[in-house]
Amino acid sequence: MTAPRIPVAILGATGAVGQKLVTLLDGHPWFEVISVCASERNVGRQYGEAVRWIEPGTPPSSVAALVLQPARPGVAGAIAFSALEATAATEIEPLFASAGYHVVTNARTSRMEPDVPLMIPEINPDALSLLAGQRKRRGWEGSLVANPNCSVVVLAGVLAPLHRAFGIERVFAATMQAVSGAGYPGLPSLDALGNVVPFIDGEEEKFAPEIGKILSSSFALSAHVNRVPVVDGHTVALSVGFEKRVTPEEAREVLATFRPPAEVAALPSAPDAFLRIHDAEDRPQPRLDAGLGGGMTISVGRIRPCPLLDIRLVALAHNTVRGAAGAALLNAELLVSRGFIERPS
Amino acid sequence: MTAPRIPVAILGATGAVGQKLVTLLDGHPWFEVISVCASERNVGRQYGEAVRWIEPGTPPSSVAALVLQPARPGVAGAIAFSALEATAATEIEPLFASAGYHVVTNARTSRMEPDVPLMIPEINPDALSLLAGQRKRRGWEGSLVANPNCSVVVLAGVLAPLHRAFGIERVFAATMQAVSGAGYPGLPSLDALGNVVPFIDGEEEKFAPEIGKILSSSFALSAHVNRVPVVDGHTVALSVGFEKRVTPEEAREVLATFRPPAEVAALPSAPDAFLRIHDAEDRPQPRLDAGLGGGMTISVGRIRPCPLLDIRLVALAHNTVRGAAGAALLNAELLVSRGFIERPS
Amino acid sequence: MTAPRIPVAILGATGAVGQKLVTLLDGHPWFEVISVCASERNVGRQYGEAVRWIEPGTPPSSVAALVLQPARPGVAGAIAFSALEATAATEIEPLFASAGYHVVTNARTSRMEPDVPLMIPEINPDALSLLAGQRKRRGWEGSLVANPNCSVVVLAGVLAPLHRAFGIERVFAATMQAVSGAGYPGLPSLDALGNVVPFIDGEEEKFAPEIGKILSSSFALSAHVNRVPVVDGHTVALSVGFEKRVTPEEAREVLATFRPPAEVAALPSAPDAFLRIHDAEDRPQPRLDAGLGGGMTISVGRIRPCPLLDIRLVALAHNTVRGAAGAALLNAELLVSRGFIERPS
Amino acid sequence: MTAPRIPVAILGATGAVGQKLVTLLDGHPWFEVISVCASERNVGRQYGEAVRWIEPGTPPSSVAALVLQPARPGVAGAIAFSALEATAATEIEPLFASAGYHVVTNARTSRMEPDVPLMIPEINPDALSLLAGQRKRRGWEGSLVANPNCSVVVLAGVLAPLHRAFGIERVFAATMQAVSGAGYPGLPSLDALGNVVPFIDGEEEKFAPEIGKILSSSFALSAHVNRVPVVDGHTVALSVGFEKRVTPEEAREVLATFRPPAEVAALPSAPDAFLRIHDAEDRPQPRLDAGLGGGMTISVGRIRPCPLLDIRLVALAHNTVRGAAGAALLNAELLVSRGFIERPS
Repeated sequence: MTAPRIPVAILGATGAVGQKLVTLLDGHPWFEVISVCASERNVGRQYGEAVRWIEPGTPPSSVAALVLQPARPGVAGAIAFSALEATAATEIEPLFASAGYHVVTNARTSRMEPDVPLMIPEINPDALSLLAGQRKRRGWEGSLVANPNCSVVVLAGVLAPLHRAFGIERVFAATMQAVSGAGYPGLPSLDALGNVVPFIDGEEEKFAPEIGKILSSSFALSAHVNRVPVVDGHTVALSVGFEKRVTPEEAREVLATFRPPAEVAALPSAPDAFLRIHDAEDRPQPRLDAGLGGGMTISVGRIRPCPLLDIRLVALAHNTVRGAAGAALLNAELLVSRGFIERPS
Repeated sequence: MTAPRIPVAILGATGAVGQKLVTLLDGHPWFEVISVCASERNVGRQYGEAVRWIEPGTPPSSVAALVLQPARPGVAGAIAFSALEATAATEIEPLFASAGYHVVTNARTSRMEPDVPLMIPEINPDALSLLAGQRKRRGWEGSLVANPNCSVVVLAGVLAPLHRAFGIERVFAATMQAVSGAGYPGLPSLDALGNVVPFIDGEEEKFAPEIGKILSSSFALSAHVNRVPVVDGHTVALSVGFEKRVTPEEAREVLATFRPPAEVAALPSAPDAFLRIHDAEDRPQPRLDAGLGGGMTISVGRIRPCPLLDIRLVALAHNTVRGAAGAALLNAELLVSRGFIERPS
Repeated sequence: MTAPRIPVAILGATGAVGQKLVTLLDGHPWFEVISVCASERNVGRQYGEAVRWIEPGTPPSSVAALVLQPARPGVAGAIAFSALEATAATEIEPLFASAGYHVVTNARTSRMEPDVPLMIPEINPDALSLLAGQRKRRGWEGSLVANPNCSVVVLAGVLAPLHRAFGIERVFAATMQAVSGAGYPGLPSLDALGNVVPFIDGEEEKFAPEIGKILSSSFALSAHVNRVPVVDGHTVALSVGFEKRVTPEEAREVLATFRPPAEVAALPSAPDAFLRIHDAEDRPQPRLDAGLGGGMTISVGRIRPCPLLDIRLVALAHNTVRGAAGAALLNAELLVSRGFIERPS
Repeated sequence: MTAPRIPVAILGATGAVGQKLVTLLDGHPWFEVISVCASERNVGRQYGEAVRWIEPGTPPSSVAALVLQPARPGVAGAIAFSALEATAATEIEPLFASAGYHVVTNARTSRMEPDVPLMIPEINPDALSLLAGQRKRRGWEGSLVANPNCSVVVLAGVLAPLHRAFGIERVFAATMQAVSGAGYPGLPSLDALGNVVPFIDGEEEKFAPEIGKILSSSFALSAHVNRVPVVDGHTVALSVGFEKRVTPEEAREVLATFRPPAEVAALPSAPDAFLRIHDAEDRPQPRLDAGLGGGMTISVGRIRPCPLLDIRLVALAHNTVRGAAGAALLNAELLVSRGFIERPS
């Protein structure tokens, strides 16, 4: 419990994803938050005073007492978890990576850069091999690693095992996304209550390229995104067509027996089950299943034939844990496990 | 205003659809509710006393004062609007049709019978030509006409014009259906609040055959149904593939210029616009658009290219008006307009 | 239908209350919107282009085509409906009143000024007698009339008849207020979904003084305000203590027989029933009752004994119609009816 | 971990409270579920097959495998946790108590019987002294202990320390209660979504007598109960008047320094903090605070002066944990701690 931990900084610490990072890092066995960074107007204030806390309870006292600093290299920490917005991320993250920080980002800006690992550790941990070239080409002492869009995590997590087994050709995906995915204040309540908004700006366009990069492959994908009055948990209705005929039973067997690499399964934030197959005909549901595995398990259910492609199914995961803050943590843990970051002794 | 009206009975008058019928028939220019029928335990009580009213306000006083009768032929009325459940409908509706009533039903049981018109008046009014054979074969003095499933109304309403113009081959449809579609008490609040239930018993199986019957055609359809925390309004995300290449602009033009037959557009319950095309990128939405045209207009938006088929779009309609009670009213009005039922003079 | 109408301007026309004014004024028999004013960044754009429309459907075409102007005297119109925010209202409304406009405001800023009528026409129409002094003292050619806070409308509407009959001494009021009361974007969805926020900044402090001014009286009032996940309709749980002992039956009788002055009941926006007494034990409810009387009826139910004071009851009204835009309309209509504004002939 | 545990049975194990008991007892250090009882139609089926599981995930495998038995003495177990409905509880619980089981019930039926402890262990643990007389008078080998109504737990938890310090004379309480308090299926979604129902049958009448019994005192209490669209967490707005003048600061001090008996604080289900004072002006809120202390902490906020009585405040607790299943667990743990039930060695 009192082993020395790796010091980490959080960039964008007062926003929704920043708060989730603070929450998940509380009591983390390897990492200790020692710096919190925010925009200029909050610099100099204590985190506990400045933050509009939207997680349960109150901020952990150790973080609440930290004084907010500007998001500039020089802040203490070996890892910089970035919950910055796109514009700020583009400017600030390279400064940190150049200065020797390992930047683990949730921002969308660098995900598609060829030398930035876009990673779900259970699926493509070897994306970290990009870092050697990244650091050399950019002259960075540190590095930059990204996690995917919150819906892409659900999609890629379910599609990767199927793709490796059968070869995916075509995917139809209709999402029903939780409001927490829009941050805070995010979606106005008048748009959310008792309503569906069948549009999220820029979202549908991200799915195919991000999934393609993660799977090192490409297939046709038709996305229909929707915002629904759910707090946490993105639900996705999927039809999948393969290179050869695949039955629901075969697909189920592949998903049920998929195991991430042992190295990844042993990481502190990895859930007992990466994928969980539900047999009840009306599951998964966000209220009941988004929190499984501490929010890190991806649920799958209703695997059945598709009149157009091969199979239909429903997938679901917690969008701010598995789809954002927890995804970043797992990425950082893999960096440690693979020796990119040294653990103090 | 004081022209004599056609007397009508409502079967299943205390349920959710029955109440919506009572509401929509209040002040109707052609029809007057003079009989309300319910299950045995409520027979003999005044409607206003027996009903657990879930529509706004209170029941119209003229109906509230009616005494509930058993759903048996003999009740006064030329038309019997049926909001009966499937089992009761199977048994009771033929008795009424045989006894000379024109039965206009929302029940699913007889929709697929070959000699029962399954009708959306704007789309297939000539389905009424089935009635001659129906009455002869069954020896009925009355008749039986059905409206489709509430989601099918949305789908067929949008797909019919496209099919006639271009020939549809394939359809993906992911629904986000309102809880009022499950009746009352229907879905428990613990299942609905902040949740998505990706399953509705027996629903997905209805889409292809009902749409096929309405359009006198058939194409492959993959349905993904979901219940979302919305009170009124079914939203459907659609991908559509045609026999030839079709652009979003071409599809939009067909939908924007579609006009129902003048005879149908003139019916009392027909909306000003059968289809309404929305240009805002985030519409239609159930909170804002389900009530358009008094709940009888079908909204369409986000017509855009599809990476898999030809186009994607979003369709929406009020499930208990356009998709149930209002659909039944319009069917009955067409029966009158076509002379199957005589208007008193 | 084609009688000439009084030209009106709307200040703050693109906000939530401004949009409700546009909606309610569409087809108004006396008023015609000919000017819409907005903040600088929108000036010069067509209303239909600039507005983020959150009412059902789309803006009336006549208003959608108007070009947004700065909120400065000189815009066409005899009446200026003000949906301005407090700061802007303080600055701008007097300029209009001084320039000869009759300013009918929903802003809170001037409500408690002694010479500004704070009016619910059914309750205190004679507050208009303040206008003579107001105009003389301030040297205004026009005038300024305010409607109360949206919760105060519910409270005063129910308490006024009781106070006149029995004399109120003490009131306990716990509100459950709809999110539309916070405007747009207003409350973030993460605060609203599945949640209660037991605080609205500055709200509790308004109740006693505003009610006191409307009733020309004062009594002790303990307010507990809460925001609940309801779109439209403020519900208030009330305990009321009188100068003498009053039974629920006596209170019910007073409320049931209360009638506003005939002059007010005849105004275009006045509902058939100002107060509606519900006898069902679980009413009023916002989903069912907020829209009664076109949103202008105040509902009352559960009138029962109170173990501490005399009676308990539940009151409810539509907060953006009866509590804001509709309240302003009715105020303006009374100004016309009383001859402060001339109707064109 | 492998110390022998006390065998327990759950009566009404498939209902909402029964499921919460199963969930909270999973991994309990003292208790082990070895019998699950249900109504006749489910007897003989495995729990995991028969239950319509509404808690997150799936039932613990050890309980899922148990075969449902009739709720009759003879089932294995020293403690019988009862989640029975009122009618069944009246009949069945005495049979168990007579046969030697310690019955720990959530049912309302026996709460007000003079010799049944109605207990919140942090508040009135010595209510257990009633058991000697209870067992003697009734000739029971076992015993019967009850926890209060879910709203009463919130009220009594906050009022008890204040009453002991200052003497309470009068209380106004307006509740905003979560839908989970109505069980499953409970409230229909059409009543819950975007709505407030200002009525819960029989609820208001329970508050004064139950609180009076727990506090061994009585004062005037005016209750206004409401159902709101919240899943978990009852929020209560309170005004409290004391025998002498009390300031908010004095009340806050009493609540902040209240500590339950050390014996109770050490029980496995006791939270770190029985009461938690929130200083943020908009807290407590059910989404953020119902889960504090594993759902066993009662939150208090907005302690401020009251224009009518002495103080106003907002209280909140998790209704199915602190207000039902967790309350029962804590009661049972106190029975063990006080030696009424022996721990196996």
